[in-house]
Amino acid sequence: MTQDIRQLNLAFMGFGHVGRAFARLLLSRRAWLRREMGVECRVTGIASLDHGLAIDPAGIPLHKALGSRKSAFGLDRYHEGPACASTLDFVRQCGADVLFEMSVLSLTGEPAATYIGEALRAGLHVVTVNKGPVATHFRSLTRLARLRAVRFLYEGTVMDGTPVFNLVRQNLPSTRILSLRGILNSTTNYILSQMELGASFESALSYTQANGIAEADPSLDLDGWDAAFKLSILIQAMMGGTTRPDEIRREGISEETGRLVRSAVRRDRRIRLVARAYRHGGQVVGKVEPEELEVFDPLASIRGLSNILILNTDTMGELAIIENNPDVRQTAFALFTDLVTLLIRPRR
Amino acid sequence: MTQDIRQLNLAFMGFGHVGRAFARLLLSRRAWLRREMGVECRVTGIASLDHGLAIDPAGIPLHKALGSRKSAFGLDRYHEGPACASTLDFVRQCGADVLFEMSVLSLTGEPAATYIGEALRAGLHVVTVNKGPVATHFRSLTRLARLRAVRFLYEGTVMDGTPVFNLVRQNLPSTRILSLRGILNSTTNYILSQMELGASFESALSYTQANGIAEADPSLDLDGWDAAFKLSILIQAMMGGTTRPDEIRREGISEETGRLVRSAVRRDRRIRLVARAYRHGGQVVGKVEPEELEVFDPLASIRGLSNILILNTDTMGELAIIENNPDVRQTAFALFTDLVTLLIRPRR
Repeated sequence: MTQDIRQLNLAFMGFGHVGRAFARLLLSRRAWLRREMGVECRVTGIASLDHGLAIDPAGIPLHKALGSRKSAFGLDRYHEGPACASTLDFVRQCGADVLFEMSVLSLTGEPAATYIGEALRAGLHVVTVNKGPVATHFRSLTRLARLRAVRFLYEGTVMDGTPVFNLVRQNLPSTRILSLRGILNSTTNYILSQMELGASFESALSYTQANGIAEADPSLDLDGWDAAFKLSILIQAMMGGTTRPDEIRREGISEETGRLVRSAVRRDRRIRLVARAYRHGGQVVGKVEPEELEVFDPLASIRGLSNILILNTDTMGELAIIENNPDVRQTAFALFTDLVTLLIRPRR
Repeated sequence: MTQDIRQLNLAFMGFGHVGRAFARLLLSRRAWLRREMGVECRVTGIASLDHGLAIDPAGIPLHKALGSRKSAFGLDRYHEGPACASTLDFVRQCGADVLFEMSVLSLTGEPAATYIGEALRAGLHVVTVNKGPVATHFRSLTRLARLRAVRFLYEGTVMDGTPVFNLVRQNLPSTRILSLRGILNSTTNYILSQMELGASFESALSYTQANGIAEADPSLDLDGWDAAFKLSILIQAMMGGTTRPDEIRREGISEETGRLVRSAVRRDRRIRLVARAYRHGGQVVGKVEPEELEVFDPLASIRGLSNILILNTDTMGELAIIENNPDVRQTAFALFTDLVTLLIRPRR
């Protein structure tokens, strides 16, 4: 099939584990993107707190940039663009059609929300895996994207590249989500299921930190914030609710939880950190808390880093999707699926 | 939003449990179809072995037809079209844009495959929930649809309206399915999990027959044929294989299996009828057979009428989707999602 190949300019905000995994995925899917989507992707900007900043309208050599990790500010050597005094400057000058926002979670959603807003206003599509700005600024950012006729996509904020938002949007037409529950945080689930096997809280937590699974600040996982942000996005994107993360009843896990875990196991039951949302009096209520479950509960069978989301719908009854032991490649794939989504449906 | 409403003519082949549930769903989603898809659906033909046949270019009154169950050949009273000497005549004269084929499984795939072929040749889109023709004539029917630039869709052949084919096609871009395994047959899974609880084979089977879950001929479930047909479709549609149902190694369950089930339970293990496919020497190998599983295996947690499919992919690692205790409404929803798919993407 012969067709015109369209040039597409991408910018990365963040170039840590996720950004690099996404860069490698893009390189490996270059032929696929040309053949199936008719595009040739060029990265015209990368901004990273730890590794410097580069803008090059002719395209940054990704292969080489992937090697820049060794030195701090290693990206600066590829800078061939205008001087950037700030990250907002970067957003305005990166010359991209799509901004990939990959910075880490903050409870306010800032400064990422400001950068995303600026990008949308400038007519860029935005793809993010950062829960912060999506949960805290859902309404304003989705409205802004609609006004500017660009896409604001965030599949990777919940269960990485596992289709969650795409599943409901694309594959469950005319469906109302009545309620949902799930295990959405890998760090706490890993700790709980390791404690079931006799491991200590500390050693299980260390593993998730050493392997880049825990948030930069692990208290965001342990205190249930990570799950609450994800639940807030699910509620706003799928259930038409307005529940922000700080409006979600939230209880985390700690070393103390170990006692509950062992007691539950003795009675052939399991403790899981369950996120749930349900409709009540015209509102959507959200909760994140440890629950004791029967061993036959589908949530009890989710062990280690795995996640599950169970949707209760008016068309399909109960439907569940499980992501088994993800790593950073699944997060990178989320960014890739959003890229494909906006290529297929650049509007709406 | 004002827009032109397009008229879409539908024909039903089959008007039993599934056809009627689909008719009810269409009626309940009329406003949604107008608003979101810009179409007004009209049923111009219904052909049923048990309930007669009707063609009316002006539209059969669905509400009334739904009441026609009481009398054999009750549909004939709505016939306002040309005389039909045969079902092929019906396909040619039903005046539809889309044919919904809902007849029951036969091992040859006939006569449904002939009717579907005739409809595609006549330029109709075809949506089916019938595993027979899809598994046995996959290549010829998909090729014919491509040639005529119409859609041939079959989401409901595996796990009803749970997105399986749509999940892979729409939400897992550039993904290769390396292998898959699952529980795809509700009747046998219900019997196995009831036997775990001490019920007899006979009583469990009776329940599935009384509730319209078992195939018309239950030996198609018990001997593993139903699962083998589904596995063959998964292999052909998702893995690029050519494995037909009769090329799948197949072992079913029987009253004898009860002994294995009870012995497994005593050792804290479970018996499930597992369908699996994997790549081997350039081919895709398919197997359906009872397997003894650890209690922690995700397949072991699937009880009753529920189904699960676990995909092992090169982009997302392991991903699973579960349908919890479906009934006929989930099958009807499969037809609805395919209708929406072909409205959004009438080609390819």
